[in-house]
Amino acid sequence: MRAPTPHAFSLAVALSLVAAAPLSAQTTPAPAPAPAAAPAANGPIDRIIAEGTQKSEVMRFAAHLTDRIGSRLTNSPGMRQAEAWTQDQFRALGLTNVHKEGFDFGRGWWVERASVRMVSPRPIQLTAIPIAWTPATQGTLTAPVIVAPIRSADDFAAWHGKLKGRIVLLSAPGEGSEPRTPAFRRWTEEELQAFDTFRPERYDPDGTRRELAKLDFPRQLDAFLKAEGAVATATQSVRDGKLLHGSAYRFARGDTPSLPGVEIAAEDYRRLARLAAAGDAPVLEIQSDTRYDDSDVKAYNVIADIAGSDRSGAYVMAGAHLDSWAAGDGAVDNAAGVAMVIEAARILSKMPKPKRTIRFALWNGEEQGLLGSLDYVERHIATRPTPNPPRTGLARFIGWDLDWPIKPLPDHAKLVAYFNLDNGSGRVRGINAEGNTAAVPIFKQWFAPFASMDATMVANRKVGGTDHLFFSAVGVPAFQFIQDPLDYGSRLHHTSIDTYDHLKAGDMQQGATILAAFLWNAANSDAPLPRQPIPTEPKTETPK
Amino acid sequence: MRAPTPHAFSLAVALSLVAAAPLSAQTTPAPAPAPAAAPAANGPIDRIIAEGTQKSEVMRFAAHLTDRIGSRLTNSPGMRQAEAWTQDQFRALGLTNVHKEGFDFGRGWWVERASVRMVSPRPIQLTAIPIAWTPATQGTLTAPVIVAPIRSADDFAAWHGKLKGRIVLLSAPGEGSEPRTPAFRRWTEEELQAFDTFRPERYDPDGTRRELAKLDFPRQLDAFLKAEGAVATATQSVRDGKLLHGSAYRFARGDTPSLPGVEIAAEDYRRLARLAAAGDAPVLEIQSDTRYDDSDVKAYNVIADIAGSDRSGAYVMAGAHLDSWAAGDGAVDNAAGVAMVIEAARILSKMPKPKRTIRFALWNGEEQGLLGSLDYVERHIATRPTPNPPRTGLARFIGWDLDWPIKPLPDHAKLVAYFNLDNGSGRVRGINAEGNTAAVPIFKQWFAPFASMDATMVANRKVGGTDHLFFSAVGVPAFQFIQDPLDYGSRLHHTSIDTYDHLKAGDMQQGATILAAFLWNAANSDAPLPRQPIPTEPKTETPK
Repeated sequence: MRAPTPHAFSLAVALSLVAAAPLSAQTTPAPAPAPAAAPAANGPIDRIIAEGTQKSEVMRFAAHLTDRIGSRLTNSPGMRQAEAWTQDQFRALGLTNVHKEGFDFGRGWWVERASVRMVSPRPIQLTAIPIAWTPATQGTLTAPVIVAPIRSADDFAAWHGKLKGRIVLLSAPGEGSEPRTPAFRRWTEEELQAFDTFRPERYDPDGTRRELAKLDFPRQLDAFLKAEGAVATATQSVRDGKLLHGSAYRFARGDTPSLPGVEIAAEDYRRLARLAAAGDAPVLEIQSDTRYDDSDVKAYNVIADIAGSDRSGAYVMAGAHLDSWAAGDGAVDNAAGVAMVIEAARILSKMPKPKRTIRFALWNGEEQGLLGSLDYVERHIATRPTPNPPRTGLARFIGWDLDWPIKPLPDHAKLVAYFNLDNGSGRVRGINAEGNTAAVPIFKQWFAPFASMDATMVANRKVGGTDHLFFSAVGVPAFQFIQDPLDYGSRLHHTSIDTYDHLKAGDMQQGATILAAFLWNAANSDAPLPRQPIPTEPKTETPK
Repeated sequence: MRAPTPHAFSLAVALSLVAAAPLSAQTTPAPAPAPAAAPAANGPIDRIIAEGTQKSEVMRFAAHLTDRIGSRLTNSPGMRQAEAWTQDQFRALGLTNVHKEGFDFGRGWWVERASVRMVSPRPIQLTAIPIAWTPATQGTLTAPVIVAPIRSADDFAAWHGKLKGRIVLLSAPGEGSEPRTPAFRRWTEEELQAFDTFRPERYDPDGTRRELAKLDFPRQLDAFLKAEGAVATATQSVRDGKLLHGSAYRFARGDTPSLPGVEIAAEDYRRLARLAAAGDAPVLEIQSDTRYDDSDVKAYNVIADIAGSDRSGAYVMAGAHLDSWAAGDGAVDNAAGVAMVIEAARILSKMPKPKRTIRFALWNGEEQGLLGSLDYVERHIATRPTPNPPRTGLARFIGWDLDWPIKPLPDHAKLVAYFNLDNGSGRVRGINAEGNTAAVPIFKQWFAPFASMDATMVANRKVGGTDHLFFSAVGVPAFQFIQDPLDYGSRLHHTSIDTYDHLKAGDMQQGATILAAFLWNAANSDAPLPRQPIPTEPKTETPK
């Protein structure tokens, strides 16, 4: 293991000579500056910018992933196609070591056909989607609804005997809402600056254990509903405007719900709840033709390299998750990131051989708890003690900070930096430095050529939620870019309108170009990016 | 016919004494004002405000119309229920002369069940709705699509021979868009002031004739598609975000399209178009179980009165259209207006007998060209010469200003004022005076008690588009209130999310109360509202 010390960084220093050109505010004439060396024509970053902005293929990659393949739920037929097609793309670009790495996941699932209608008190087709991994209805199921917002096992007694033969509406309906801010927006400079706010890591093992304990409730609820004779479940979409998600976390092989389940658009769900409250228990007709595939319960990450000249085995890495939820085509989440990663590989495939190897990873199982990147980290980078009993699935994600110490594996020292893209199709405005203060000035220099393309901010904060997390957690420099939000969070994230239509081509070209430049810089710098120590078990919990 | 002269108006004058209380800006002490008469406790307007804001039932009316009855396409089963239920409500409130007035319309239509799937190149359930009045598919129709944006009969030759066996995608797909302004908003004071902008009436008979000529294109297109062997049509929703409309104007009995037709959500439609352009002609499976009802081709307006003490037969009137399109529940368009009209009737039913009769009208066929209010005007208020051949349906609406002279009928002189509500559930912020300059100061006085409820603006402009139009066009004082836009235009108007969820109860209580107050004032004023002359054929067209 290499000691994580900050290094002087020659490319950064070279760039700083340009960026820090003296701005004289004195009234006396400044001495004439020494004549600058003529800038090198077609420097590597200029070549990357030309390739990425003039010959971009990023939208071709995105179109195939979204329009042609569509949703890529982990282990679904779409995801299997995507695993194969992305490997083909990397091979066609001349990358080496193209392969997939499997990890235990569970069954595949998809929707072949689905329809939810209210048939009484009046016929109306509802906007609805089967909840991921729920079983089929075996033809058409017709039953009255009951609104039973069961929040914990403590509520079971109150509903005992009332659910037989019913479609159980599990969400509390609430009231409609209206969007009072623009759905589509970009960060202001003030907002970007506010991101530069370091907060110490917060460890909360008691909170983690409480979260883990809650994970069993869906199974308890499923067993209760089955025992009570309920025939199906329905939940309300968390968004208004008839947007659907259908996302739920029930993935392990053999651990799928007993009852068919659908998510119903908020407007349609609330109408059902109001009619039920008014005395007319509406009758629904559900046809949910969902399918399982148990032929291969492993999920696969896709890996591809641009081999470096350095024989030490050092490498830099970019990643994005290839899997998605199933309501839309997984466009901003995250065909956008995947297309930018492949496009960065395409751009860099036109460049001379880098010093360090550049690795590209397309993760699987991200939506179920960063499982693909976690597998990569545990397989190659570092391990933690296995608890007894071992945690699986989402519990691995939630419980990751309970197990100490971290034991580095051989790649820990070789992986110089990991860069992640998972914030939609908005242009890159900066990067989160994850508390790596020595990396901050280096990143600022790397962004210098991109100031005119709106990318400048280096925010020394930690962010979570996506695939750099487990790298960062074991002390590898791992970073997520800051991207303009656009309408990612306001209406696209996991929804039925996460389609190609809402990808922004100009933004994605910029993002892929910057990713390529960062990878080039990280692969070719004299010294690797500064590192932080491997985290050790915190002695005291951070005050709340 | 009574000459339309401005009259002094005693209630207005009385209110002006309160509103115009002297505000002294002098430095010398103002003389002590004469002691004011003690205000009358429980004056009529205070009673109306108390009833409308403390005992409101407006949301009960709205809930039944939207949740329970749902969409009310002219002559559909929902609209038949609404015709009956609203009469029941008026009777239950003690109103008299409750009846319906029928006019020729055409067949009823509704959607019993509908599903549109892409089955190739991959299975995905599309968000789609049958287009109003299109025929059923007779089971499931499976066929490949072709994108053929046929805009006029001139395009037919280019598509000859290419459409056989195809589902014809008739819209040009365009590109996705993002909402950059808030969907939900209220008028600013500046915007309200800008409405006070009088523009002279614009007559454009040549333009009208061109519009009339275009009305035949849908029939030509239908005949062409049928002759070419196309199997169905599809259009793209005009809004993004998976909102649907399904609205189309094909209503006359026996004049329904030959081919099943669906409107597909923009995101889904564009995906089809992109896949088709990429070489994979997608195959759709359409099940459109639509139904016709030819048992009664008349559509009915609902009329109800609060009888006045005056024996002259003079009356004031409020109206809103009861019919809707079929994609949502017709909530903001226009259960909101209907509920406010019925609630105004409820409030006024608690008041002493007014001087003039107060009439309530719920119109039918508004969405197909203000046909219900046009029928009322032609039946009771004024006639125009019948062209040869007579115009029907939408052509009656479009061609209304071609036929002169206007001949008043007996009710022309009796109808003192007509007030319309058709701008959603937003609170009343003012009223459009329609060029009736003498009414402006009167309305300002009528709004005086509502300044603290945000309603103040009297804008002397003409507005069109809804059921006051034909009254105003024949010289009866007829007005549409100004309401806050909320998200009516941005996402609710005619869409699949026009449901009860998006009605604003507080706003609707305010609106119903103000409508009741205006009706009370108009019914009880010493002199009727000032009138304008009956329009005569313009000698010259207004310059464009």
